[in-house]
Amino acid sequence: MANAASQEHPLLSAYCPLYQDAVELIGRRWTGAIVRTLLTGSTRFGEILASIPGLSDRLLSERLRELEAAGVVTRTVFPEVPVRIEYELTEKGHELEAIVGAIGDWADRWGRGNRHEDHASA
Amino acid sequence: MANAASQEHPLLSAYCPLYQDAVELIGRRWTGAIVRTLLTGSTRFGEILASIPGLSDRLLSERLRELEAAGVVTRTVFPEVPVRIEYELTEKGHELEAIVGAIGDWADRWGRGNRHEDHASA
Repeated sequence: MANAASQEHPLLSAYCPLYQDAVELIGRRWTGAIVRTLLTGSTRFGEILASIPGLSDRLLSERLRELEAAGVVTRTVFPEVPVRIEYELTEKGHELEAIVGAIGDWADRWGRGNRHEDHASA
Repeated sequence: MANAASQEHPLLSAYCPLYQDAVELIGRRWTGAIVRTLLTGSTRFGEILASIPGLSDRLLSERLRELEAAGVVTRTVFPEVPVRIEYELTEKGHELEAIVGAIGDWADRWGRGNRHEDHASA
């Protein structure tokens, strides 16, 4: 904030393709919810699926593959019987927490016509 | 933070449809870039369009209408000759700045395989 005094929003002064990539990654349908669930510590496919109403297992697989490709999630297969697979956030993934938190705060304050009370009591 | 000591990520403990709406609004193709441009103080359609490479005027109109419907942007028509139209963020829209900032920071640090140096020198 202090350094910004001489120039308003210096970070925002130009279009930024890296910002664009990031906002579209996190905003892709279901991705924000999946990252949020992983941040709470869920690691199993079934657990993640159960926590997000309306998400199909086909789409969850697809989104997890995209997040792996983006370096946000690791998939580890444990050669047990039955086989165990765990999904975890990488360091890059964990650092999405500030974004997820900021979106959560904004949604809490402004979601669906500012019905903060409904949400708080739900 | 202080209240969160007894429970990890209390805000994140359940699926939240308001969060889901918010993350998908901001993540919709071009929307993040449009909000970012409005935060820098651009108000005219042509200005916004010129600041975002690859954005067509049809899509900019569509996204601005969605942002108006979401209560994020106001559109004011000044009955001058020629007519002047200004797009501005509402209070709700201005408060997206924390999200846009958090995404910008993350993108700066992690965008496209962590090429922070490339981005800084661009």
